[in-house]
Formats: sequence, C-alpha cells, structure tokens
Amino acid sequence: MIKVIRSSFLDFIDDPFYTSETASVRYLEDGLLVIENGKIKDFGTYEQLHEKYVGIDAIAYPDKLIMPGFIDTHIHYPQTAMVAAYGEQLLEWLSKYTFPTEAKFKDKNYAQEIATVFLDELLKNGTTTALVFAAVFPESVDAFFEEAERRNLRMIAGKVMMNRNAPDFLLDTAQSSYDETKALIKKWHQKGRLLYAVTPRFAITSTDEQLDLAGQLLAEFPDVYLHTHLSENVNEVQFVAELFPNSKGYLDVYDQAGLVKEKSIFAHGVQLTDQEFQRLSEAKSAISFCPTSNLFLGSGLFKLNKAKSSETPVKVGLGTDIGAGTSFSLLQTANEAYKVVQLQGEKLSSFKALFLATLGGARALSLEDKLGNFDIGKEADFIVIDPKATPAMALRNADFPVKTLEEIADKAFAIVIMGDDRTIEATYIMGEIAYQSV
Amino acid sequence: MIKVIRSSFLDFIDDPFYTSETASVRYLEDGLLVIENGKIKDFGTYEQLHEKYVGIDAIAYPDKLIMPGFIDTHIHYPQTAMVAAYGEQLLEWLSKYTFPTEAKFKDKNYAQEIATVFLDELLKNGTTTALVFAAVFPESVDAFFEEAERRNLRMIAGKVMMNRNAPDFLLDTAQSSYDETKALIKKWHQKGRLLYAVTPRFAITSTDEQLDLAGQLLAEFPDVYLHTHLSENVNEVQFVAELFPNSKGYLDVYDQAGLVKEKSIFAHGVQLTDQEFQRLSEAKSAISFCPTSNLFLGSGLFKLNKAKSSETPVKVGLGTDIGAGTSFSLLQTANEAYKVVQLQGEKLSSFKALFLATLGGARALSLEDKLGNFDIGKEADFIVIDPKATPAMALRNADFPVKTLEEIADKAFAIVIMGDDRTIEATYIMGEIAYQSV
Repeated sequence: MIKVIRSSFLDFIDDPFYTSETASVRYLEDGLLVIENGKIKDFGTYEQLHEKYVGIDAIAYPDKLIMPGFIDTHIHYPQTAMVAAYGEQLLEWLSKYTFPTEAKFKDKNYAQEIATVFLDELLKNGTTTALVFAAVFPESVDAFFEEAERRNLRMIAGKVMMNRNAPDFLLDTAQSSYDETKALIKKWHQKGRLLYAVTPRFAITSTDEQLDLAGQLLAEFPDVYLHTHLSENVNEVQFVAELFPNSKGYLDVYDQAGLVKEKSIFAHGVQLTDQEFQRLSEAKSAISFCPTSNLFLGSGLFKLNKAKSSETPVKVGLGTDIGAGTSFSLLQTANEAYKVVQLQGEKLSSFKALFLATLGGARALSLEDKLGNFDIGKEADFIVIDPKATPAMALRNADFPVKTLEEIADKAFAIVIMGDDRTIEATYIMGEIAYQSV
Repeated sequence: MIKVIRSSFLDFIDDPFYTSETASVRYLEDGLLVIENGKIKDFGTYEQLHEKYVGIDAIAYPDKLIMPGFIDTHIHYPQTAMVAAYGEQLLEWLSKYTFPTEAKFKDKNYAQEIATVFLDELLKNGTTTALVFAAVFPESVDAFFEEAERRNLRMIAGKVMMNRNAPDFLLDTAQSSYDETKALIKKWHQKGRLLYAVTPRFAITSTDEQLDLAGQLLAEFPDVYLHTHLSENVNEVQFVAELFPNSKGYLDVYDQAGLVKEKSIFAHGVQLTDQEFQRLSEAKSAISFCPTSNLFLGSGLFKLNKAKSSETPVKVGLGTDIGAGTSFSLLQTANEAYKVVQLQGEKLSSFKALFLATLGGARALSLEDKLGNFDIGKEADFIVIDPKATPAMALRNADFPVKTLEEIADKAFAIVIMGDDRTIEATYIMGEIAYQSV
C-alpha cells in the first residue's frame, strides 16, 4: 500500500561541515513523501509529484516541517529514572548513583518496565534510532530488544562488559562477558531491524583480557558495532594512564585490543589529543558528542570543529547520554551543542546541528544506506515538527512556512534553541505513526 | 476574606551560601498558607494551624510543591520575539538583531501586544516579579507598566537611556533621556506595585554626560533602581576601556557617575576583576547571573562562588536575559547555572539554586521585606509546582511527596534540572490565581 505525506520537508544530502550549506541541505516548502512497505518510494516537490500520485489521498501536515527521525548516538536506557543526580563529576557520579541504579536491571521485569518508558520517551522526542547501553545483565539486553522489536525500531544495543573497578554485584568476568555477548549477538544482531554493539563500559572497568576478548568478538562478527566511552573527564584519563602503563594514551588502550574500527562509536572525546583525533579519522571511527552531559558533569567543552576539520575528519553524531545528560530531546542537545561551540568562539549553524542529529548520526552509525534522509529506498522513519509548538515559538516563527534557504535556516535555528519534546507533533516508524502528540 | 492553601511548601529564610542549608531552608511536607487581602496572614504546618482555620475550606494541592514566585532579575521585554538569533557574540548580536527589533517599540500598539505575550509567558513560567528593560521610547515603558498594572504585578522597569554607538533611530540625548526618565518615574514609580529603574543600556551606548545625568536621577529619587549591563563579554570590556580612558575599569565608569549603589543591579559580570567584586560588595549592589544568555552568546562562565564568597559577598539573583537567554523559565536558567558552576569544578545545590530564584532574587532587588518567602506580612505571590509534570519527571520523582530535607533536596534538584514551564501548575498573584496550566 502506498502512503503519501504532504508538508514542508527538510533533510541533508551531504555534510555541511565540508560542503557548502546550500549544497548539503534539501528544503521543499511544499513536498510529497511517498512510502511503500515502510520505505521511501518517492520524494519531491508537490509540483513534481502530485500528478503521479493523483488517486491517493495525501496525509497533509500544513504549517509543519517534516524531518528524518533523530538519531541518538549515545544513551543508557537503565539510567532513565536517574536523570539529575546531584553534584558529582564522572567517577564519583558512577559510584554514587549509576552503579546502584544499574544493579536493578538484573530483574527482567524491572528492565522491561524501564525499557517501555525509555522507548516511549525516545519516540515522544522524535528519536527513532539510538545506540544504547544496556546493563551488565543479559536479561537487560533481552528486555530492551524485545520492546524495540515489538515497536519495529532500528536500535543498536549491547550488554555492558565490566570486570573490575565497580561493585561486585555489577561485575562479569572476561570469559563470561565474551560468552554472554556472543550468545546475545547470535540472538539479536540483524533480527529484524535490531543490531548489536559490543559494549565494554570504558577502559577503567575492563581488564586487558576483557578488552582483548571484546576485540576478538569484533573479529569474529565483523559487522557488529563497538560502543564505549572515551576521554570524557580529566581524572578518568589520568586513571586510565595509571591502569594501562603500556598504552600511549586512552584511545591506544582500545586500539591495542583491536577496538578502533569503522563501526566503533566512542562517546564524549572531550579530552582527546590531536594524535587521537588523527587516529580516529584514519580508522573511520565515530565520536558521539554529548553536550548536556558534558556540561552537567562538568567534563568540559568538546572540540567539535577539531573533530570536523578537513585535516582529520572524524564522524560525529549527537548523543543525549541520558542519565548524565539532562534531556531526552536532541533539540535541547543541539541547543547546548551550540553553546559549547559558542564558548569556544565558533559557530554551529542550524543546518550543521540538524545534520548531526540526522544524516550525521546515520553516518556515525554506518547506517547512511538505510536512514538519515529522504533518499529513495531508505527506511521511512521520520518526524513531524511543529515550528510553533509553544506561544514563544509561535511568536518567533510566526512567518513559517517560508520559502528560502536563508529563511528556513533561521526558523530551524529557533527550533533548535527553543524546541523540546513538544516540538515533535508526530513520529513515524517505517511509515506508520508511532507517536502522536495530544 | 481569608484564603487557606494546603500543600507541601518550600522556601528559604536565610542564604544557604553563608548559612548551613539546613538552617536556611524551610520545608513543610503538609503545610497551610493563609492569605488575607493579598498578603500572608499565617504560615505553618497543617498540624499547627488547621484548628485555627477550621471553618474555612482549604484549596488543596496534594502531591504538589508550593514555592514563592520566581524572581527574574534581568530580562528585556522588547526581545520576546527574537529569542534564538543566530551566530553572534554580544556586540555584533546587538547591531544585527537587537537594535532593529527594538526600533519597533516606538509603536505603542506593538509594544502593548508584546508586553501582553511577555507577561503571559512570565506567569506561565512561574515568574511573578522581574526587573525589566523596556526600549528607548517612553511609549514602550507606558505599554509595559499599563499591562503589569492591569495584572497587579510587582514589576520594576525603565526606559533605556542610550545616546551613542547605536543607530540614530534608537538614540535619545543626555537631556531627553533625563527628562523622559524623570517624567516616567513620577508617573509610575510606586504606582500600586510598580517600581522604576533608571536604565542606561550599558557604558558603550552612553556618554559621560548621560551617565552623569542617570546618577543625578538616582540622587534626586533615592529609592528608584539602577539597572544596566556590566562586564559581559571580553570585547565589550575592551571597548569600554577605549571609550573611557580615565576610568579604572568598567565598573568604575558607573561608579564615577554615582551609579554603584544599594539598589543598583548589574547584569552579567562575567569578566569582573577581584577589585570589582570587592567594590560591588562594599556598595551592596547586586549582580544578575544569566547563564543561558552567557552560554548562548559565548560570553563565558560567571564566577558564582566568587560573588558569593564570604570575603566579598555580593547579592546575586538569576536572570533569564531574554532575548539573549534561551528560555523564560527560571528552572531552565537554574539548570544551566548548575552547569556553569560544574564547569568550574564546583557545585550548586538545588537549595542554593532555588534560593537564587526566590529570596536571593528578592534580596538582589531590595524587596525582601515584601517578597521571596512565606513570612507573615509578605505579598502572596506564589507558584504551584508539579514535581511529576512530565513522564520523565514522574519517573524520577515517583516518591514525592517526601519527608526529609535530604529527600526534598533531591526532588528539588530534579525539578531544577528537568523542569520548564510545564512544571508550573499554577501561579498566584497577591493570593489570586493568575495562571493555571491546562
């Protein structure tokens, strides 16, 4: 069955950090998106396409803006209920709040309950794909994937591997983490839309042996992902140096274990050295930039323009990093990304920010063949944005819809800075409505 | 007529930056607030007071938290429609966006329209008192005060004085600014709940003569306020030094004109020197800390703990600084205040943050005899907070209401970090409901 959607559309066909903004953005003031079997069958202006689909009643969203679903490249679903844990920086925050919270995920019923709230929250915020930390318990992975499968979502997740420097009740062993991960890969990877990420928490909580086994899993299953944390906090970097005296640096710890690859996504990278940026660039690995988290934990200011430089280009996506991040909204995340960049005396345009939240995220997750824009053949995960969702936004965006790229850049900037979950009027998954604001 | 409100209540009786948090906060899990003629007649636990008011039906807010209305110590009402103006730091942002916007406020009808939206937005966000920049045109002040008077709000505002370094269409002269301000003071100051602030924009847009005349107005009307900007941005500080070669620094420019006094409120102060903090402390002047604005314009990190040090204590309130700030919500402002403090390796507790938004703001505005907490005799401006306003907050604050100070500190922190306008269920002005969420 064919479904036709009519509205204004905004997406990206290239990276505005390297190509001109004009050449990388695609804005249709009055467009048609045609969907068949959950995938994009056609996309163009109303003018171009309406005669071709003349017999089909279009679902119209006048005065709205449709974008590809947002992609969250770093989030912890077990931390859904612990947002806003007070007063600590990374290592103390983990011991005091995170580890006790994650212990609850041994209970599959609790894990199911939180997975449900978590995925509701993602859809409500317009996030259609995420790279997700589960907990150390395989049950927590099952609970998450079962709920994601039920909703037909494209999600990437994995069991946390951690065998030291945490409370006993959260530790696996190198061998058990290998065995359990392997079983979970076989069970879930490529099941429907689901994908698996080998997920050592971070260098501090894994021995060399565990990291090596993680690398072995990547060698055995070359199309699974690697998802971990990297160089978030100064004290963390220092502790890693003490734990791994034979490494040349934090990234090198992962590199020696064979974890720095094209489908490797490293969260944060606030403290990276120039050499590490270069290595990530060579390896085609990705960084998840998590501004609300980096500010909340006082980790520092990610050097976005260094990561996106022409000399050492690194793939970058945005991450909410719930529960150290303070919002499930990638719009609020982009708001604080703008601020992090401004504090460094640089600029982040609305197009660049929204690229990071869509096609940039898809590229960071090596999913650009399936997601990230409205190219024909891609999966039809998309969101309906209301540029006038609140009275303050209605005043600011009073003249939406607009015609020119300059105008839509300005309206999109107001959406980035003032938007939140209320800005998302509806979320579609594979062409079917999965969330509708009341 | 007597009105009795029953709920949980949180307010401050002292400054938690200097007194222990336990001694400065007042939390009643089950309290009664008694109002007569718009003022607080009684306040205490249900246990203590219910027999005294047994014949009166209480208005009950079970599962909610009532606090004094928020006080915004720095905001520009003419900038309501220009939040999220892209890509510039202070001086360029003013020329490119702000000045053209403020030109519209020569039209009193437009000013009335925006004043209405602005005050709606304040009440919706739980802000009951604000220190407000109008535009350079006296009509813009009239429009604002008329609308504030109609709503019986305690508001402080003033006509912008600016006679150089801005487009001609926005300039007054030293003499006209003196005459117009004097007339506005006579017309509005102490009219009902309204108060006037002498409002030179900042040193850059005033000549020595204009600043001196502003000082003369303060001398003639010793109980009016002084409201201006100070040391926000590095380039601004440099430009001030060039414009005033005989000053010892930015604050000294104001000091030489007699503007540094007890009822003087300076917005920002991001770039202040130690000597300037000391001078502000001696003069008992106040700073408005505007974190969302300071991040949005890339101005830098305000040294809150320096301002609140025991050596040179300075009165500090929170400011949204709309339109350079990105939210009308003092909760979102407190969220980013926390982040600014974390980036400096320090902490801002929920009680300290909420003190700044209430009693701290009242003290910054020398209104602590009238506003800021539930002391008997104060004006009954207060807000009803829903600690479970969104699904994510409902999960985080599932166990509210709580008994202990430690527990309410934690719930209040979630309100600070996750809250926005939706967190405000109702706003009362002088004991009458002025906003109710739908």
